[in-house]
Amino acid sequence: MIFRQLYEPLSSTYTYLIGDEDTGEAILIDPVIATMDRDLAELHKLGLKLAYTVDTHIHADHITAALEMKRAVGSQIAAPAYDRLECADIGLEEGVPLTVAGITIDPLHTPGHTAGHFAYLFDGRVFTGDALLIEGCGRTDFQNGDADALYDSVRNKLFALPDETLVYPAHDYKERFVSSIAQEKKRNPRLGGDISIEAFRDIMNNLNLPYPKFIDHAVPGNLQCGVCPKDLPENLAGYCRQMTQSPQG
Amino acid sequence: MIFRQLYEPLSSTYTYLIGDEDTGEAILIDPVIATMDRDLAELHKLGLKLAYTVDTHIHADHITAALEMKRAVGSQIAAPAYDRLECADIGLEEGVPLTVAGITIDPLHTPGHTAGHFAYLFDGRVFTGDALLIEGCGRTDFQNGDADALYDSVRNKLFALPDETLVYPAHDYKERFVSSIAQEKKRNPRLGGDISIEAFRDIMNNLNLPYPKFIDHAVPGNLQCGVCPKDLPENLAGYCRQMTQSPQG
Repeated sequence: MIFRQLYEPLSSTYTYLIGDEDTGEAILIDPVIATMDRDLAELHKLGLKLAYTVDTHIHADHITAALEMKRAVGSQIAAPAYDRLECADIGLEEGVPLTVAGITIDPLHTPGHTAGHFAYLFDGRVFTGDALLIEGCGRTDFQNGDADALYDSVRNKLFALPDETLVYPAHDYKERFVSSIAQEKKRNPRLGGDISIEAFRDIMNNLNLPYPKFIDHAVPGNLQCGVCPKDLPENLAGYCRQMTQSPQG
Repeated sequence: MIFRQLYEPLSSTYTYLIGDEDTGEAILIDPVIATMDRDLAELHKLGLKLAYTVDTHIHADHITAALEMKRAVGSQIAAPAYDRLECADIGLEEGVPLTVAGITIDPLHTPGHTAGHFAYLFDGRVFTGDALLIEGCGRTDFQNGDADALYDSVRNKLFALPDETLVYPAHDYKERFVSSIAQEKKRNPRLGGDISIEAFRDIMNNLNLPYPKFIDHAVPGNLQCGVCPKDLPENLAGYCRQMTQSPQG
């Protein structure tokens, strides 16, 4: 099994590449349009063919590369069925594994950051999207976000996984790459220890975060599986422009 | 493959259990005498037979369970050949993998914390002992410790592993469980980034750490693969007394 953790610096997004050496097939979890060429180069270098792109949710901070990858290399688009995206080839549901030539991922519905948010389990790892970040979690004030739902998703579903399960989030802003369920249970300041739902609600209601600068472009684009808006203001152009370098995580 | 990260709270030591479901055989990396019964219970619960105990180095802060495990369940004692322990059944050397019914670990000589210190590579993980801790490293002022050697071991040998390699240290004192080579390259304040050997030497020469409280008992005991000293002072008795609870990592 081949595993790569790739990094997109503008939105601090981790894209995960999982490949099967025997079949030569691969999937990408949360690919970003700005680093699409880098990801394709990585697949090519590893001798892998992209079978599926898999998104954890409708992202608000970047545009998924799902549609452009499909156009470029014929990959299928997998996304949570909950969001009923017309552009998706397959809708993922909890209890229904996605199997691609040697790779099986198990979807877990983990609402709270968005209502349709999914995490994916694979081989002792959980790709937690924005539901559970290392010592943090995604915000709950857009896209039907719900602090109570996120508390339930993390504490009753993700924290119920074996302690050694590796936590691979969709983002990190402090150069952390990996955690474990045991570690987040102990150290997550928002959701770990014996924190109550009232205390978590209070934290999430008082984050005072700025309005997400790219959300008005990202959400409509991602509802179409990754369409870049036309006439993007120059200060946001990097979100859709291909990077010429190969920033690695 | 079965993997468990177990924790001994008195010396904050992680013991790692690796088991093969098909053959039913297991190894323990750095088992601690105080949590030996807990580890045996875990093996029993998992239906595994302990084939080998494997130590990363001559520990100064706890006593290895290697000898007592051998007496209890007939496991073999594997330890760095460098230390020439008469009590060891097999001496591990770099370039010579240890294979136990489905489990292969690759020894890497990583001197600096002690002269004979080894790390072990297994399936995308590196068990780094006290050479590389999460955002830290072991001290270099005992047992032929050598800051220059540790700098070389970590930066030129461990940091040369693939970025995604999971780092599992022998200790953590802040409830962290796992890191990755990429993460330590970026975030380790002693050994990461572009730190020079002079700067690292300076850090290690100025730690001003207290004399290790158990070293005078631990090192002689571990040179015999884990013999508890007689007449241990009451304040240190816990190091050799079996824990009645089952503290999990």
